[in-house]
Amino acid sequence: MCGDPVIWKPSEKSPLCALMVQKICDRVVARFGDDAPDGLIQTVIGERETGEVLTASRDVAIVSATGSTRMGQAVSAAMARRFGRCILELGGNNAMIVSPSADVEMALRAIVFSAVGTAGQRCTSLRRLIVHQDIYQALIPRLKKAYSGLPIGDPLAEGSLIGPLIDRDAFDAMERALEIARADGGDIFGGGPALRNTYPDAAYVHPAIVEMPGQTEIVREETFAPILYVMKYSDLDAAIALQNDVPQGLSSCIFTTDVRESEYFLSAVGSDCGIANVNIGPSGAEIGGAFGGEKDTGGGRESRSDAWRGYMRRQTNTINYSRDLPLAQGIKFDI
Amino acid sequence: MCGDPVIWKPSEKSPLCALMVQKICDRVVARFGDDAPDGLIQTVIGERETGEVLTASRDVAIVSATGSTRMGQAVSAAMARRFGRCILELGGNNAMIVSPSADVEMALRAIVFSAVGTAGQRCTSLRRLIVHQDIYQALIPRLKKAYSGLPIGDPLAEGSLIGPLIDRDAFDAMERALEIARADGGDIFGGGPALRNTYPDAAYVHPAIVEMPGQTEIVREETFAPILYVMKYSDLDAAIALQNDVPQGLSSCIFTTDVRESEYFLSAVGSDCGIANVNIGPSGAEIGGAFGGEKDTGGGRESRSDAWRGYMRRQTNTINYSRDLPLAQGIKFDI
Amino acid sequence: MCGDPVIWKPSEKSPLCALMVQKICDRVVARFGDDAPDGLIQTVIGERETGEVLTASRDVAIVSATGSTRMGQAVSAAMARRFGRCILELGGNNAMIVSPSADVEMALRAIVFSAVGTAGQRCTSLRRLIVHQDIYQALIPRLKKAYSGLPIGDPLAEGSLIGPLIDRDAFDAMERALEIARADGGDIFGGGPALRNTYPDAAYVHPAIVEMPGQTEIVREETFAPILYVMKYSDLDAAIALQNDVPQGLSSCIFTTDVRESEYFLSAVGSDCGIANVNIGPSGAEIGGAFGGEKDTGGGRESRSDAWRGYMRRQTNTINYSRDLPLAQGIKFDI
Amino acid sequence: MCGDPVIWKPSEKSPLCALMVQKICDRVVARFGDDAPDGLIQTVIGERETGEVLTASRDVAIVSATGSTRMGQAVSAAMARRFGRCILELGGNNAMIVSPSADVEMALRAIVFSAVGTAGQRCTSLRRLIVHQDIYQALIPRLKKAYSGLPIGDPLAEGSLIGPLIDRDAFDAMERALEIARADGGDIFGGGPALRNTYPDAAYVHPAIVEMPGQTEIVREETFAPILYVMKYSDLDAAIALQNDVPQGLSSCIFTTDVRESEYFLSAVGSDCGIANVNIGPSGAEIGGAFGGEKDTGGGRESRSDAWRGYMRRQTNTINYSRDLPLAQGIKFDI
Repeated sequence: MCGDPVIWKPSEKSPLCALMVQKICDRVVARFGDDAPDGLIQTVIGERETGEVLTASRDVAIVSATGSTRMGQAVSAAMARRFGRCILELGGNNAMIVSPSADVEMALRAIVFSAVGTAGQRCTSLRRLIVHQDIYQALIPRLKKAYSGLPIGDPLAEGSLIGPLIDRDAFDAMERALEIARADGGDIFGGGPALRNTYPDAAYVHPAIVEMPGQTEIVREETFAPILYVMKYSDLDAAIALQNDVPQGLSSCIFTTDVRESEYFLSAVGSDCGIANVNIGPSGAEIGGAFGGEKDTGGGRESRSDAWRGYMRRQTNTINYSRDLPLAQGIKFDI
Repeated sequence: MCGDPVIWKPSEKSPLCALMVQKICDRVVARFGDDAPDGLIQTVIGERETGEVLTASRDVAIVSATGSTRMGQAVSAAMARRFGRCILELGGNNAMIVSPSADVEMALRAIVFSAVGTAGQRCTSLRRLIVHQDIYQALIPRLKKAYSGLPIGDPLAEGSLIGPLIDRDAFDAMERALEIARADGGDIFGGGPALRNTYPDAAYVHPAIVEMPGQTEIVREETFAPILYVMKYSDLDAAIALQNDVPQGLSSCIFTTDVRESEYFLSAVGSDCGIANVNIGPSGAEIGGAFGGEKDTGGGRESRSDAWRGYMRRQTNTINYSRDLPLAQGIKFDI
Repeated sequence: MCGDPVIWKPSEKSPLCALMVQKICDRVVARFGDDAPDGLIQTVIGERETGEVLTASRDVAIVSATGSTRMGQAVSAAMARRFGRCILELGGNNAMIVSPSADVEMALRAIVFSAVGTAGQRCTSLRRLIVHQDIYQALIPRLKKAYSGLPIGDPLAEGSLIGPLIDRDAFDAMERALEIARADGGDIFGGGPALRNTYPDAAYVHPAIVEMPGQTEIVREETFAPILYVMKYSDLDAAIALQNDVPQGLSSCIFTTDVRESEYFLSAVGSDCGIANVNIGPSGAEIGGAFGGEKDTGGGRESRSDAWRGYMRRQTNTINYSRDLPLAQGIKFDI
Repeated sequence: MCGDPVIWKPSEKSPLCALMVQKICDRVVARFGDDAPDGLIQTVIGERETGEVLTASRDVAIVSATGSTRMGQAVSAAMARRFGRCILELGGNNAMIVSPSADVEMALRAIVFSAVGTAGQRCTSLRRLIVHQDIYQALIPRLKKAYSGLPIGDPLAEGSLIGPLIDRDAFDAMERALEIARADGGDIFGGGPALRNTYPDAAYVHPAIVEMPGQTEIVREETFAPILYVMKYSDLDAAIALQNDVPQGLSSCIFTTDVRESEYFLSAVGSDCGIANVNIGPSGAEIGGAFGGEKDTGGGRESRSDAWRGYMRRQTNTINYSRDLPLAQGIKFDI
């Protein structure tokens, strides 16, 4: 990474993918022969303690950490103590605003894909839908209809669009969130276990749409599951305020055909997220742009423009090739 | 600052300058009338607790802190807890390498200015001198001679080149450092109180040159006073290793006329500081370059290129103006 | 200009402004004393021959020329012969597309200002109006009404919005253009001399709106006078084709509230001009952006980003500070 | 090239290489199927008239031409007439300055490689050697010795370092240049035909070193053959003046270990070429830098940074998403 050696500690819940990638890296590194030092790219598997060894070691100049806000705080504080650098990509609570002028067909496709794709387990999954009151009735019933027909199943099987949650803990967290949402006045569509008979050990679920009377505490939390909270708005400023009024600041989007609305949403008084899209979902096609978020998302950026800055030292150089010695700020100092 | 309002908390030891600047800012802000919100630029005077209020408040999105490493760690950890941003400019322990090919006259002037100017109380003051053995005898005796003739006195008086230390604590710290250096085998030239009779309440000192047998612990510390530790080298790589082997990473320089040495010093295997100069002192004329340092100096940058990045939010935008909806990573997801 | 000395040859029709500016420059240069060489900024007054002396002289490394396409061709060819550089800002034939979703009030104001301001004698004056058929009746009658009430008069007098043409030649060119347009089937509103009794020696005119059956030859020419050719469209691609189908490529704009239209207009298949605005006239508020145009406008850019490139030399440097000699393309060549 | 289709017209003297590359491109283009339009990359073989068709056609928006200054002038003037763009890379007359502090071994290798490699038929071939008088005797005799041992032969054969000139015209031009140089007082070492018996139809030559009493007219011309003119200097400013005093401005270099000399050479008062290297020949390892030259070399740049600017349109956009209409320069214009 920018010439730095890399140690990769994957989530303890998904070590296999990292091990596969390590094998690929090994082959690549081998091609460079002696030009590539031993251990240039390494994978370590472990839990919290392993991570703590990395953040504690002065030999690790920078830690790029993706995960929960709590983990991010721990990493960030550990690195701060020794003036190491962090690139944090923590929680997201990504919203879409659907304006009256939106292309409803397009919005519909974008919502379903970004709310239920990878079973809502993407950092940029859509979690909150803020719909203008004038378009609410044209959108929500169709959305529920689309949800009803989604094929849940083995993610490796042709045709499956929704696979399982990662484990039973994730399932429990989803259930708990739905319960709280209901207690807050939410009207739940969908949710609950799926394919229990076929896959008794897996945590398949039906994705849920929850129409909320307001943005209660549970809505302001990131639940890593396919729950989509839906809220109504009548005024764009209020919708943006709602969108911004969560601790996380990863991704956001607006569906509108009105250039005044789209540019306003992208302006300094618009979305406060690190990613803001127009007519494309929060887990959009922004590949190539700097990726990361503001506020509790941690402020880090990976990929493209500026990401290299996180990984590199910066140095300001002045070369005096004259035969005189200029002094700072033009000071006179004759000895 | 980049459109952000500013609250300035100066060092509790030097509040008057801040208050003067505040007065100037008030006049400037007044010219903008209602376009400038109330309290756009404010000064608060206080000690550690005042600073803690600022770092604790979520309303303060970013803290740019200049001062000690200990303060920096506290600020950094406090900000990490709430994912606020820091721009830290902490301690420096700035060195100069003098190579055999150096222009001795030029080096001499640069050393004196940067070691004793503002009585060694500049973040970029020269604190360590790493001299090639072949030029040592040509340089050090002349340096001592130059020190002997330096006019110490009221900094507002014409002709004074060395004013007082900021307070008695600073004087004590200097005395203590010299004692330790002597115990470590250092050979001290100069040092000790000056102008005691004329200014009994002020902390005037004679600047000190300390020839050290090696880079002991006290040399690796920043003592905010006019102490210059001198060491010998015979090989450039060893000199660079010595220069880099301190916790701080603010400024550094080399005096050489050899382009192979100068570029090597500026290369990835050269100085690890945020500032590296050639034929110009560490408190050089780098105005216009990004200012700040690596390692325990805290990694922040103020002034010019890139500094604005510290003060601004970043947002990646994708605008889909087509009538199709591209999905992330080209995924197929038909509902 | 980027450290270069400047010789300014204003249009022979307007020397006084240049002479005034020269006086200001003289005062500025004088402040620098001996640091500013004699003749750093000079004004020369003259006709074509004077310009030819400048383009012929090898001492003039770069010519930035603003004026007619014919002049630009002559300058460009003369500079090409000696590999001098040009920055050309030649004719414009700026259009506005008004889409059905446009804010009509805003468009109206923008049209009037940019078509009749400075009596249509601005390089970025609006000369062509391409209006969607569905909004044509809502816009054109109101535009004519606005034209009827415009105060023509001494440009130094309070309240005047339209001053005179620069000379009788300009008046004749306007009359000739209107005649041709009428012969082409154009329906002319306004036009003709104004204030003849009050200012018998000046060339005041009534601004003209000409509804055209198509983009005939006269519409494709730049007539430096307040003539606005109006055409209808029904399909955005056709409107953009019309907008692009002139030799000049300076400025262009669209009035629309539809983000799909605005971004399409700004895309690679949209306007081919050097300036393209949305909801702002062609002589818009783009101060701060690079200024200039494509095609027969000459390709030059002044102001901001990139403009300095026109005025400066560029040099690629490689410093080899190793003790080895790398050869180009890794060639092996042992002697 | 930056999304533009390409028509390649190689030199009429070397069509085969272009045809081979075209075959490769055909294979690449084929992979894109219908996404790549027919004729995306084409090769045309022809002489001057073919080139004139390209420069005359308004369908060819930009011509990047490499070749002689005369050709460049013709292309440039033809493009100027229709405001087409050129990227010109014309003649070079590349020099090396060898300072007293130079690493002689390194300079020697660099001189031989860049003066005789590809038999002096590279745009960046070394043509002029400007040697400090104090190092002249240490360098020139060794250079002659190195020249004596260079293996001339079939460029495809292992061990050959010098192949033939491209044709008999090139041979005649070299002979003519050497004659003139001799008449100007030049002292010639080497030169003349080689391997005539083995390859009667080819134009093999012995590379020539010509010690000149000064920079006469023939030295200021580019002769595309392995002739190296050698001159002496005693003062760096004079050496740089000599280096700059030719019409061409492609590449240049200095061999020195003195940072004051190297940076001076790279400064605004140093080399006026588009490429300037330190301790690396003019046909150096600058791959990755912008490639091209100033003055009669034509000013164009290919490769990396900025080169894309030559191939692309530029557009300044302003989007007004407010409900107000700002006017240029804050003008008040109420209708």
